[in-house]
Amino acid sequence: MLESIHSPRDLDKLSYEQLESLAGEIRNELITTVSANGGHLASNLGIVELTLALHRVFHMPEDRIVFDVGHQSYVHKMVTGRYDRFSTLRSYGGISGFPKRCESEYDCFETGHASTAISAALGMARARDYRKEQYEVIAVVGDGALTGGMCYEALNDAGNSGTKMIVILNDNEMSIAPNVGALSNYLTNLRISAGWQSAKRKVRHLNSIPVIGRPLYRMIHGAKKLIRTVLLRYSELGFFEALGFSYFGPISGHDLAGMENAFRQAQMYKGPCVIHVLTKKGYGYDKAEERPEAFHGTPPFYIETGNRVDKPDRPSLGHVMADTLADMTEKDPRIVAITAAMKLGTGLDHFAEKFPDRLIDVGIAEEHAATMAAGLAAGGMRPYVAVYASFFQRCYDQMLHDVCMQQLPVTFLLDRSGIGGEDGQTHHGLFDLSMTIPVPGLTVLAPCSSEELVSMLRWTAGQDGPCVIRYPKSLGTFETDLPYLPFTVGTWHALNEMSGVILLATGSMTARAVRARDILGKQGIAAAVVNCSTVKPLDEQFLASVPETAKVFTLEEHMLNGGFGAYVSQTCLSRGWTVPVRCFGVEDTFIQHGDHEHLMQDAGLSAEQIAEKIAADVKGEGTLG
Amino acid sequence: MLESIHSPRDLDKLSYEQLESLAGEIRNELITTVSANGGHLASNLGIVELTLALHRVFHMPEDRIVFDVGHQSYVHKMVTGRYDRFSTLRSYGGISGFPKRCESEYDCFETGHASTAISAALGMARARDYRKEQYEVIAVVGDGALTGGMCYEALNDAGNSGTKMIVILNDNEMSIAPNVGALSNYLTNLRISAGWQSAKRKVRHLNSIPVIGRPLYRMIHGAKKLIRTVLLRYSELGFFEALGFSYFGPISGHDLAGMENAFRQAQMYKGPCVIHVLTKKGYGYDKAEERPEAFHGTPPFYIETGNRVDKPDRPSLGHVMADTLADMTEKDPRIVAITAAMKLGTGLDHFAEKFPDRLIDVGIAEEHAATMAAGLAAGGMRPYVAVYASFFQRCYDQMLHDVCMQQLPVTFLLDRSGIGGEDGQTHHGLFDLSMTIPVPGLTVLAPCSSEELVSMLRWTAGQDGPCVIRYPKSLGTFETDLPYLPFTVGTWHALNEMSGVILLATGSMTARAVRARDILGKQGIAAAVVNCSTVKPLDEQFLASVPETAKVFTLEEHMLNGGFGAYVSQTCLSRGWTVPVRCFGVEDTFIQHGDHEHLMQDAGLSAEQIAEKIAADVKGEGTLG
Repeated sequence: MLESIHSPRDLDKLSYEQLESLAGEIRNELITTVSANGGHLASNLGIVELTLALHRVFHMPEDRIVFDVGHQSYVHKMVTGRYDRFSTLRSYGGISGFPKRCESEYDCFETGHASTAISAALGMARARDYRKEQYEVIAVVGDGALTGGMCYEALNDAGNSGTKMIVILNDNEMSIAPNVGALSNYLTNLRISAGWQSAKRKVRHLNSIPVIGRPLYRMIHGAKKLIRTVLLRYSELGFFEALGFSYFGPISGHDLAGMENAFRQAQMYKGPCVIHVLTKKGYGYDKAEERPEAFHGTPPFYIETGNRVDKPDRPSLGHVMADTLADMTEKDPRIVAITAAMKLGTGLDHFAEKFPDRLIDVGIAEEHAATMAAGLAAGGMRPYVAVYASFFQRCYDQMLHDVCMQQLPVTFLLDRSGIGGEDGQTHHGLFDLSMTIPVPGLTVLAPCSSEELVSMLRWTAGQDGPCVIRYPKSLGTFETDLPYLPFTVGTWHALNEMSGVILLATGSMTARAVRARDILGKQGIAAAVVNCSTVKPLDEQFLASVPETAKVFTLEEHMLNGGFGAYVSQTCLSRGWTVPVRCFGVEDTFIQHGDHEHLMQDAGLSAEQIAEKIAADVKGEGTLG
Repeated sequence: MLESIHSPRDLDKLSYEQLESLAGEIRNELITTVSANGGHLASNLGIVELTLALHRVFHMPEDRIVFDVGHQSYVHKMVTGRYDRFSTLRSYGGISGFPKRCESEYDCFETGHASTAISAALGMARARDYRKEQYEVIAVVGDGALTGGMCYEALNDAGNSGTKMIVILNDNEMSIAPNVGALSNYLTNLRISAGWQSAKRKVRHLNSIPVIGRPLYRMIHGAKKLIRTVLLRYSELGFFEALGFSYFGPISGHDLAGMENAFRQAQMYKGPCVIHVLTKKGYGYDKAEERPEAFHGTPPFYIETGNRVDKPDRPSLGHVMADTLADMTEKDPRIVAITAAMKLGTGLDHFAEKFPDRLIDVGIAEEHAATMAAGLAAGGMRPYVAVYASFFQRCYDQMLHDVCMQQLPVTFLLDRSGIGGEDGQTHHGLFDLSMTIPVPGLTVLAPCSSEELVSMLRWTAGQDGPCVIRYPKSLGTFETDLPYLPFTVGTWHALNEMSGVILLATGSMTARAVRARDILGKQGIAAAVVNCSTVKPLDEQFLASVPETAKVFTLEEHMLNGGFGAYVSQTCLSRGWTVPVRCFGVEDTFIQHGDHEHLMQDAGLSAEQIAEKIAADVKGEGTLG
């Protein structure tokens, strides 16, 4: 049946029986494709009926549906004309795992990081009102995303302005990991007290919406007027109501007819409202229902067993970090680790096994994570904030003001730095060096190997100021090319004899530079690879010692603008060191999705491409830049 | 009496009568000093009794009090041993207008931007518990700051963990401007329903706290058990209670004994709690009570009349911006302006006079502001987000992902860029170029004059992509040195005949470069000033045309690392243009507070210093860098 769905309007003709069987087909397709390509499975399995109900009641692209965080948009993609390409999901040149405006007019707003949808939807709703247009704007937000402060800012603004919009709270009782935070307890309370909500609605004379739970209508109905007053008074003080939203629910997210009824009611409602929908993550695939965290974002797996197809032959740097941190904590009771809802992703589950009470999960709240860490440091602790490099963008001001201006000993561990891969442009970590290099007093490090990461971490324990360590998920097989490198902060180490061609490589690029050097060697060009594991402070002594006749190349997995190469270039010029410096990095464009090596090649950063360009430059045929 | 207060413990001996007279002395001192030095007046007048009560009940520095945003810490400074230096407030070399750890052990955490205090306090409270220490941690937060999402993230985390801490909600019914947002309505509701809160407390059998309003105790007391159940149920669903906090109040913030009683109750409470305190902004100075917005942050004024001492002879660039935007809106119905609680500060009050419904004030919520603007743009509008450059740091991820990755036509207007002045390090705008230069597809502009700002704004209306315009509060008298400059995006204009010494100046530095050039001219050194009003894209054609024999100097009011000079340097080196480039900007250190010209001199950026260094460099005696 799925082949016949070319647009959401094709859903209109189907009976509920047919829709149920379509939902089954969609789940099969989700499991098949994600088991082959990897991706976000559990959340998409949970949102099948909700997506169908949304598309049947609302008419995209006139109506606008914004999917918060966006990784749960697979079903939406299947029913909006992209089923035929669905097998290319997340692969190089294929369709993205997130909404993309360039992909379809049904993707009205791109998302990737959590908690943005209500803000975006409110903007669209206001634009609609300014332009005197008529359409619905719907934000689909998970309960996990609600732990992000942006959601609250948006609810506060929307509730105050009274702008008509619908927020679907897709409550699967967890975001990526089981939810933390008091609001999560509150939602649980709402789920349990469904009857009370129903009672409240009756009192308010709203039309009925199917609810889970036994209404206490009769009890309330018979009570005195005073009770009614009390109820109304306190209903105004509920979380969503305090923020000016009307609250409906909770309703089952796997009951199509019930949801459609609720959405139609909401359509007629004039102001901003929240519809609380309960879904089950992983619904319909037992392995994912049992272990929703493991199937949140998953690599390719065997459908029968749920086991991963490939076991990585080297540990992720996140696990190396977490194991080292656990070792350090044995001796240093000041250490505490912080995650923003990414215990598994950052590898900190390894740390928590040994020191469960030393891991603080703050929810999807990077701003709070950074400042809370500053508070911990001001109170005498040594906090380590592990966060993906791209999510670190969420706490720029807090890192700068609350940590660095006070020179507090907080270490930020930036996982997934560099080009990320299949998750695409919102998940690459390509801006962290330009965020951190300008910050006074901040030490910026990038290890080229697991061993170096371990040394760096141990070094931070003795420091009294802030530090950032950036590293990719894994260094892959490249890492094995490297000799053991002693880490000394601020000192760069040449991996082989110095030469007139010098490759200043940082982090993940060091092993790659070694490969490029070997290729150059075969062409008779002797090059020296220097491991620049300290990005800031630069090794100015080294730079000053470079002869004027040398040719210097910088290599980084980061944007060229504002990165390591720019820092080296400016420093050399400002010091009057007239060394020609050419920079390898990501040119001034956003990198799409696909496998890492493909994307590196697109950016001109394969070992072969690097060697080729250096050779041409050395021979005076250079086209670099 | 104030002279005799050397530490908070000196407050213990005073009777309430003496404290009342002390409060009067403090208010006099506040008015006298701020009328001379400028500063934050209304909020400090409002918090006198609250500060005294806090210091009498809690014992700093063992106990920790974190003042959110920090500009209301003047009273705290006076009673913690800084009264003798209070007349130096905000002046160069004097005491800061914000908490500073280097100034006093009573300043336990530095603040400057809103909404960080609960996060910092929670971190300290957790550190206390980890280290098995005993002290109180108190966050003092204004109702305005509560519109920031960080507060919510912190409340959510603290409420869930149950960590003992006290949040004092200093509710003066406005932050900087009258509060916006639904939560503000909610707080109003709490104020009105003080009686209900009281009733609720009685039901809960908590100790009594003096409250404003007539308790409905008797009514509730006589009601049935059902009512009690209902009350308890819904009290659990109140805003603060939903987030796991116990709520006490509201209580009067000008009743010392009442507050002391409440704080002592809170001391005994085991979990996290909020005490809602009602204060009056500007309390005790009629001019400030009447116009609290004008006396939020004020320049020097006459105490008798409340009028400002100096009227600026040139309009602020914010007003130039707002007037231009209003002009443009006459013809272009797509334009909408957005502020994050800074209507006056950004000059948008001028815009709102003409187009009140085209100004959206989202509260202190920069993240939401940026993404909501992206939503507006996606809906066909042309949003202009006016924000101080340092607050722009709050929405880095949103600017990057929600605006720029989608190439939406949002223009960010960064007021107060460059070295700010008396507000000091948290308010300088010195990181915005390093934030924006690496972002693909973002145009970055910096006008050297009001006229150029007008041209730039008019240019943006025809653009379909994102743009940033950075400018200082005012260009002062320097601006008058400049000839009329036509603005063409991407093209740099030489202000005088080209020469072998080229000054590439951007924004506020152009007029300063002209002065430096004139000084150099008197020494027989001919220099050309080039106005680089487009920072990105660079005028590569211009750069390519610079002869190898020339000496190039870049000038920017920004950090050297990651700024305009670094961008020029890297581009020249990467293109193989072997031009020596030396950069003027802020070295790798945080700039303190004081008057702008003093701070510029500290940074080596006075016209005389620039001329001197260039002359030395040209003569080959250079020590630049």
